[in-house]
Amino acid sequence: MLKVPVHQVAGHPASEGQLGPLVDESGCFYKPLQNNERGNTEVAFYMSFSSNPRVPKHIQRFFPKFYGTRLVEASDGSGLHPHLVLEDVISNYVKPSIMDVKIGSRTWYAEASEDYIQKCFEKDKKSSSVSLGFRISGLQVYRSPESGYWKPEKKQIQKFGADDVSLVLRRFVSSYQPTESDRDPDCAFASSIYGGSSGILAQLRELKSWFEDQTILQFYSCSILMFYDKESLLNGGDPRGAVKLVDFAHVVESKGSIDHNFLGGLCSLIKFISEALATVNECTIEACSTD
Amino acid sequence: MLKVPVHQVAGHPASEGQLGPLVDESGCFYKPLQNNERGNTEVAFYMSFSSNPRVPKHIQRFFPKFYGTRLVEASDGSGLHPHLVLEDVISNYVKPSIMDVKIGSRTWYAEASEDYIQKCFEKDKKSSSVSLGFRISGLQVYRSPESGYWKPEKKQIQKFGADDVSLVLRRFVSSYQPTESDRDPDCAFASSIYGGSSGILAQLRELKSWFEDQTILQFYSCSILMFYDKESLLNGGDPRGAVKLVDFAHVVESKGSIDHNFLGGLCSLIKFISEALATVNECTIEACSTD
Repeated sequence: MLKVPVHQVAGHPASEGQLGPLVDESGCFYKPLQNNERGNTEVAFYMSFSSNPRVPKHIQRFFPKFYGTRLVEASDGSGLHPHLVLEDVISNYVKPSIMDVKIGSRTWYAEASEDYIQKCFEKDKKSSSVSLGFRISGLQVYRSPESGYWKPEKKQIQKFGADDVSLVLRRFVSSYQPTESDRDPDCAFASSIYGGSSGILAQLRELKSWFEDQTILQFYSCSILMFYDKESLLNGGDPRGAVKLVDFAHVVESKGSIDHNFLGGLCSLIKFISEALATVNECTIEACSTD
Repeated sequence: MLKVPVHQVAGHPASEGQLGPLVDESGCFYKPLQNNERGNTEVAFYMSFSSNPRVPKHIQRFFPKFYGTRLVEASDGSGLHPHLVLEDVISNYVKPSIMDVKIGSRTWYAEASEDYIQKCFEKDKKSSSVSLGFRISGLQVYRSPESGYWKPEKKQIQKFGADDVSLVLRRFVSSYQPTESDRDPDCAFASSIYGGSSGILAQLRELKSWFEDQTILQFYSCSILMFYDKESLLNGGDPRGAVKLVDFAHVVESKGSIDHNFLGGLCSLIKFISEALATVNECTIEACSTD
């Protein structure tokens, strides 16, 4: 039985009567293939990437597992439609906080059509892509059983500047204080989620090292999904803070250089997250020295 | 006595009867101030940067020393004109090989005029800026007393793609073999110039570390000048391989992020140079194992 995913934060949702992704109970994610070059590009990416010996194992884990393509009943009721069958990376998360960050100051590539370039160019300038090297495309932050998720609207997210991004990255790892202003989040979970040898920051840095070296592909308009399970964290369990790359409809072969566009944006995101973490460390040091 | 510099590889030369830079015999470089915002931007940059306590000493050394501004006789005969007085970074080099590399996949910033953005946008797409994250703006490679310098024309340089850039970076550190094809340079000096703990690659990596962290400025349309003295190298002396940043007419204050545009391009350049160096190391290893 396929159903509409509960925790989708970006992209077209299936719930509005249109073609969108589906999930099953065995942990698979069914992404409808677009009937154009983008669909072809994404299938080609998954087919070649998952078996590419030049991509090391510790890097493969940042990509959803690929189980092939399958014809399944489309979410819009239009009948059978080809879908990519992928790993549903958040299937085991009970109350996931998720952020989708589209990486790169430009989302277009030189070989695309003039129209497409112009469309992307305007979007990149209006959003934080040009200024920060990335833009948040969607997010949900679990607050509490009573308050559920904080999930700002797309229009609000699109207007995010540097200060908003900084705030949201801190709010993403904060405990929920309904009586206090959300302008000063406590970053209570920053060390557990962003920090540590297997935290999100360490994972992003591992990815960065690979991007400093790989000249295989250029990942235009690709997103980094960051997520963790707050319920598990609050119960003293492993929050499983994770990083996955998603959306490969605009991946192109490299023409002999690294993907400087992706790398620059990734470094910028790393810097923002480092600063969120540093705020906490400073507070801890101050607290210690006051004691 | 001011004269036209002999070793200028990029920008408008004074020699064509137009306003251009001058040098004196005490090691100063006089750069005419443009009569517009660019001139103001560059003066403001040098004034604040050279005394900015947030910029560490080991980073200041990558920038030409700044000695103020002075009215001097313009090179185009138009009378007194304000000039920046800077350190002439190659004044002590006898036979300098020089490469001017404009860093960043885009040379425009969002606050610039639509016309300016469009002009830069087209230039960036036509050159290697968009594809590689940088473009070579000028170069001269010293060959031998008989053959002098190899100094390709601007039009030829503008067409450089990934393969040309790779070739030129190897040719830059090769001995001159007049009888052989230049398509297969020997990289005889790659280890001395690019390699080692104080070589060009180490210097670029030091600069990279700073760019991963600094959120003070964004260096649009700025160049990295790489140079060394081949005469000195051939005589067994120190070739003084060096890296300097130049051209700050489009530097803007950061809006809270790192300069991901510059950093991405710098990482791309580092990768190209690493590959040039790796070729040599492989050859050396092969030679050793054959012996």
